[in-house]
Amino acid sequence: MPKPELLVAFPTPAESPFVVEHVADEFTSVCPVTGQPDFGAVTVRFEPRPAKAGGLCVELKSLKTYLQSFRNEGIYYESVTNRIRDDLARLMDPTWMLVKTDWKVRGGIRSVVRASHGVVPGMWAT
Amino acid sequence: MPKPELLVAFPTPAESPFVVEHVADEFTSVCPVTGQPDFGAVTVRFEPRPAKAGGLCVELKSLKTYLQSFRNEGIYYESVTNRIRDDLARLMDPTWMLVKTDWKVRGGIRSVVRASHGVVPGMWAT
Amino acid sequence: MPKPELLVAFPTPAESPFVVEHVADEFTSVCPVTGQPDFGAVTVRFEPRPAKAGGLCVELKSLKTYLQSFRNEGIYYESVTNRIRDDLARLMDPTWMLVKTDWKVRGGIRSVVRASHGVVPGMWAT
Amino acid sequence: MPKPELLVAFPTPAESPFVVEHVADEFTSVCPVTGQPDFGAVTVRFEPRPAKAGGLCVELKSLKTYLQSFRNEGIYYESVTNRIRDDLARLMDPTWMLVKTDWKVRGGIRSVVRASHGVVPGMWAT
Amino acid sequence: MPKPELLVAFPTPAESPFVVEHVADEFTSVCPVTGQPDFGAVTVRFEPRPAKAGGLCVELKSLKTYLQSFRNEGIYYESVTNRIRDDLARLMDPTWMLVKTDWKVRGGIRSVVRASHGVVPGMWAT
Amino acid sequence: MPKPELLVAFPTPAESPFVVEHVADEFTSVCPVTGQPDFGAVTVRFEPRPAKAGGLCVELKSLKTYLQSFRNEGIYYESVTNRIRDDLARLMDPTWMLVKTDWKVRGGIRSVVRASHGVVPGMWAT
Amino acid sequence: MPKPELLVAFPTPAESPFVVEHVADEFTSVCPVTGQPDFGAVTVRFEPRPAKAGGLCVELKSLKTYLQSFRNEGIYYESVTNRIRDDLARLMDPTWMLVKTDWKVRGGIRSVVRASHGVVPGMWAT
Amino acid sequence: MPKPELLVAFPTPAESPFVVEHVADEFTSVCPVTGQPDFGAVTVRFEPRPAKAGGLCVELKSLKTYLQSFRNEGIYYESVTNRIRDDLARLMDPTWMLVKTDWKVRGGIRSVVRASHGVVPGMWAT
Amino acid sequence: MPKPELLVAFPTPAESPFVVEHVADEFTSVCPVTGQPDFGAVTVRFEPRPAKAGGLCVELKSLKTYLQSFRNEGIYYESVTNRIRDDLARLMDPTWMLVKTDWKVRGGIRSVVRASHGVVPGMWAT
Amino acid sequence: MPKPELLVAFPTPAESPFVVEHVADEFTSVCPVTGQPDFGAVTVRFEPRPAKAGGLCVELKSLKTYLQSFRNEGIYYESVTNRIRDDLARLMDPTWMLVKTDWKVRGGIRSVVRASHGVVPGMWAT
Repeated sequence: MPKPELLVAFPTPAESPFVVEHVADEFTSVCPVTGQPDFGAVTVRFEPRPAKAGGLCVELKSLKTYLQSFRNEGIYYESVTNRIRDDLARLMDPTWMLVKTDWKVRGGIRSVVRASHGVVPGMWAT
Repeated sequence: MPKPELLVAFPTPAESPFVVEHVADEFTSVCPVTGQPDFGAVTVRFEPRPAKAGGLCVELKSLKTYLQSFRNEGIYYESVTNRIRDDLARLMDPTWMLVKTDWKVRGGIRSVVRASHGVVPGMWAT
Repeated sequence: MPKPELLVAFPTPAESPFVVEHVADEFTSVCPVTGQPDFGAVTVRFEPRPAKAGGLCVELKSLKTYLQSFRNEGIYYESVTNRIRDDLARLMDPTWMLVKTDWKVRGGIRSVVRASHGVVPGMWAT
Repeated sequence: MPKPELLVAFPTPAESPFVVEHVADEFTSVCPVTGQPDFGAVTVRFEPRPAKAGGLCVELKSLKTYLQSFRNEGIYYESVTNRIRDDLARLMDPTWMLVKTDWKVRGGIRSVVRASHGVVPGMWAT
Repeated sequence: MPKPELLVAFPTPAESPFVVEHVADEFTSVCPVTGQPDFGAVTVRFEPRPAKAGGLCVELKSLKTYLQSFRNEGIYYESVTNRIRDDLARLMDPTWMLVKTDWKVRGGIRSVVRASHGVVPGMWAT
Repeated sequence: MPKPELLVAFPTPAESPFVVEHVADEFTSVCPVTGQPDFGAVTVRFEPRPAKAGGLCVELKSLKTYLQSFRNEGIYYESVTNRIRDDLARLMDPTWMLVKTDWKVRGGIRSVVRASHGVVPGMWAT
Repeated sequence: MPKPELLVAFPTPAESPFVVEHVADEFTSVCPVTGQPDFGAVTVRFEPRPAKAGGLCVELKSLKTYLQSFRNEGIYYESVTNRIRDDLARLMDPTWMLVKTDWKVRGGIRSVVRASHGVVPGMWAT
Repeated sequence: MPKPELLVAFPTPAESPFVVEHVADEFTSVCPVTGQPDFGAVTVRFEPRPAKAGGLCVELKSLKTYLQSFRNEGIYYESVTNRIRDDLARLMDPTWMLVKTDWKVRGGIRSVVRASHGVVPGMWAT
Repeated sequence: MPKPELLVAFPTPAESPFVVEHVADEFTSVCPVTGQPDFGAVTVRFEPRPAKAGGLCVELKSLKTYLQSFRNEGIYYESVTNRIRDDLARLMDPTWMLVKTDWKVRGGIRSVVRASHGVVPGMWAT
Repeated sequence: MPKPELLVAFPTPAESPFVVEHVADEFTSVCPVTGQPDFGAVTVRFEPRPAKAGGLCVELKSLKTYLQSFRNEGIYYESVTNRIRDDLARLMDPTWMLVKTDWKVRGGIRSVVRASHGVVPGMWAT
């Protein structure tokens, strides 16, 4: 079961704007219909608020553990993506954030789902 | 014969905006002039309406079956692309949608056709 | 000698906007100065007018034959590109069109020439 | 139904040894169990016998038509590969031949099957 | 727990030699020391015995299910590889077989393990 | 310890605008928590002010030496990036600047951090 | 010594806008400090003025010879780039032009310098 | 018409063995059946005899001109390959030689033909 | 200082032959002449002796720590390679082993050094 | 003028066999016929004799300087290759050596020349 309580944040080290991107190529969950495992890559991209506004960054190891908590969860692609977006937005309340999940081929079709929080600038949205 | 009645949709799981992309690398239909098989990849990219507005997503397995229904259909590149766009727009009525078909070489020329529904943001249009 | 009379168009099958791209990797003409053969790839990208506005698409086989008519023509890169743009614009009168020619190395330099018709949207211009 | 009678051969044009390779990236057949379409690439590699020994080469267009005759055939990967090897060996009786089929992902697994005729030299066998 | 009893074989369809290769890019097991998930790709390559010698091929869907049975198993890279080799050799008794596992980066190091059965020809061993 | 005093600048050679980009693929520092070495690539991209406005460019060899001064420093990804941005902004006071750090996989996750100075045009920000 | 007098222009063949790009992968000059040779690629991209406005294009062979005149010149990256921009802008007076130089690794750092003339549209500036 | 009389050779500069490879990516001839142009790449690889044995190498510019003489020739893939092998073997009488032609897709099939002279070592034959 | 005492081995889990390969892309040491850091990738490939012959495999984490002990060591490419080969051969006494180091560009030249122990089969030696 | 006197060797650090490879991607010389610059990559691959047999390795910086001495030399591809082979063989007298030169496109043809010393094992010869 996804465990958002595993997520830990630390204060952003800067007042100037910056963009962080984490790509986890080793994500796996389970298809809620067939019970078969799904495999994908998860990209999290965000701009933390400035330090003086209490900006936060997700801690890398806690992100890893949180993503592992989906391992035996039966859940759809679209829900995985929106769920991670919600959990991380609640943790960090960033200026903007994009969560992208990129799934391996199923039935000859590969899928990509992107969920956003705030106004993601165009060059960061794809 | 293309069978839009095979398509099934499910309610979008989120109020926040998100973008879904499905790529089927194994599409085949038949050239209406020569009777020779055509091969290509079909990309479907869309933003469902929010849940509260009745937003819908196409179900992956039904998309696969629908695309297979073109297998023995004699139909031009441009018509395939516009047909899929029409059938999916009718099913989901998304905020915007892009359908792209990417065809294998014929007579030394490879072709790509893109049809859109609604206003596709620039970074999603290519 | 380039033969625009070989080009054939057919009515566009849709009212909604769509974009067509044809890439011919097997183009050859002759350098007018040295008499040596030139080799390149020709990309034609356009948005036909809507069907109700009499929109037209170039027929694929006629495009192939037209491009072959440059085979023994002595002509500069820049002129090839503008010539194809002119002939296809006359045939189809599209909403916009980009013709790109991508040439093999000559004297350690490879060249790309792009000619446009109408207002080509930024994401389609390169 | 696979139609070996579509295959045509022509006399090899040389006494010296040479190796021919044809790669068809657009092969499709049907899974005999699920009825789902399979997609793959077929490679045919062979050394014809010398002209004075009655060496033959498969004609390219007839090869295309023959491969298309599997389009609606329910048949396993292993049988497709051995069947093509048998039909072409019967047609050409080459010094050696390798038939390789390279299949798209099914259930997260992609497969390659290779069948040989005569003694395929090591550098040609993979 | 790895379940070799999930594996199913079918009789090879040919007397002539042929080589089968299955690549599963979606393998996961668990590190027995840290409890962290490991991710890798598993390649199985073999030459079945001739039909008249009772040659067998592993059935694709059963292979998928068998590989999934490692999902929550705590097991080392070297043991995974040798275990799969042993289970498949017992099932099919092929002329030769190579099992290769290709693991994602751990501590800045990526690893590949190959285990063989019988005499694997040089061009198939890497 | 990072040594900004190693950085040297030289006057920009032009009044017209231009953009400079340096990519150091061989950056290493140390994780402040685990004491393990981190490895990454550092990209510095900037537009110097015009010569008449006292524009400056960082000298290449001094940039190399400065980046090497992080070799045994225990410091987080986000801090490395912001620190380099601050040190170079202080040295050159460019019209705009982007500093990007691209880190190798840790715990199955690879990260990219980008810090900016001034208003970075969209096409330079990624 | 760079010899702009080697450059030759010819009248542009069109009234409609078009973009020309030349890429010379074989550029070499000499570092003014160490006397060591530098190697790089030079890209010249421009939109000539319309024919009726006296638009000009640089002739390809003269560009090659001009670039070769830097071979034994001791000159910095930034100066090479601005110098070529100045010489070509003087020759052609284009609507806009971008000159990009892309240099091989020195001291573990690879550099790219871009100098512009006029207002380079965003999609052409990188 | 292929003109072997265009070919020129020069004496090999060495007694020790060496291997020369020329790859012409810009080859074109004409299909004798359809009259359509064919496009391909021609690789010539050989070991000249030692200088004291009168070893010869084909001169590069003459090779270019010779290959251009196929431009309007109606000729099959297999014949092109064997013809070039014969003409070059006659010119140079090398210790061994391989001629490879690599053709663009026709009817969904791409072909490669290799003709050899003398005993081509295994690592040079593919 | 390289610390072979950090290396730990564990008993090989199989009697049948198998090959292990570890690739560490994050190796760094110091040039003994200039004091500048060197960066490279280290590949270790070996066949452990059978279990009954006391075969051993290097433990992955200890290999990581051992390779890190070169971080501030002034040592030549050739010596690094031979040193690692010697230390690992002493630890494991494998049937055969190859150690390859692949170094980043220095002075426009990139280098690869390979040292072997025992008789490395040809397909494993490069 | 090529200056073999610039080459310096140092004693090999090992009794066990090992293979060294240096790749210089920034080689340039001059065509003796046209006076135009040629550009290429030079690969030097060799096995030094054992230390007890007086084995030697070429020093990297001296190799760089030696290769630079061809910069303004008018010399053919084949002669460059054999000359480097001869100079390095005289310096080091290795067990075996391969010198490969890989040249940029001239007249639509790219060339590769390989010269060997001693008996180069097959897997090292290409």
